[in-house]
Amino acid sequence: MSDCIFCKIVNKEIPATVVYESEEVLVFMDIGPIIKGHVLVIPKKHYDPVTETPDEILAEMHLTAKKIAAAQMNGLGADGVNIMQNNGKASGQEVEHIHIHVIPRFNNDGHHWNWNPKVYNDFEEMNDLAEKLQKQLNYE
Amino acid sequence: MSDCIFCKIVNKEIPATVVYESEEVLVFMDIGPIIKGHVLVIPKKHYDPVTETPDEILAEMHLTAKKIAAAQMNGLGADGVNIMQNNGKASGQEVEHIHIHVIPRFNNDGHHWNWNPKVYNDFEEMNDLAEKLQKQLNYE
Ligand SMILES: [Zn+2]
Ligand SMILES: [Zn+2]
Repeated sequence: MSDCIFCKIVNKEIPATVVYESEEVLVFMDIGPIIKGHVLVIPKKHYDPVTETPDEILAEMHLTAKKIAAAQMNGLGADGVNIMQNNGKASGQEVEHIHIHVIPRFNNDGHHWNWNPKVYNDFEEMNDLAEKLQKQLNYE
Repeated sequence: MSDCIFCKIVNKEIPATVVYESEEVLVFMDIGPIIKGHVLVIPKKHYDPVTETPDEILAEMHLTAKKIAAAQMNGLGADGVNIMQNNGKASGQEVEHIHIHVIPRFNNDGHHWNWNPKVYNDFEEMNDLAEKLQKQLNYE
């Protein structure tokens, strides 16, 4: 897409620090890292969101993220890794070209994800949502 | 693993509200949802972390997460979806059996991920980390 910043990176119209690439996937440094060493895995073709991304491309993206996680652990000494893929403005996604954040984490790096679980009012509330999902998935 | 809560769910030693399953993968409701409708995708066999999970299992997990994202959009009316897979205590992972969080998001649902980007001191700092990753990945 002509106005997509990630397509422009793929087409070398905008510079990026590339870490890895294959025929279908490009990996480059996020210039606004949550933790320094944070990279993005994108498909070279424009797809968005995850539900519109072909299975084989999505699988290759995630197998690439696995390799990046190993490289962050072994090459940067990361103690852990977050792998995050956001879909839609409501999720926090900013660039509408599917991308996986691969973020190295270190003990006491000071970052917290604001992990603040809700509580279901009762079993029925949870079960009602589960049934709606099961119906979409043809699971009984 | 005998003391793993997710293995106990797979073995039906602990109850869970299952939404979907295949031969290799189980999907069930997270009882501490970030947003109500939040599910977990796990392999039925115990693997952890992502770097120790076989490629074919990891791919199936993420293709399942894609189906769940569609079900959350179409069945729950979600405006967006977060897909997150955490590795290691440093990342916020709590149960050490690989799992993907699939979290439905709604406009104005009030959740924020504390997305607070850092700034590299200069290009060299970023490039130095990139070179360490490239070396691990045999990318020149
Ligand atoms: Zn694009
Ligand atoms: Zn387990």
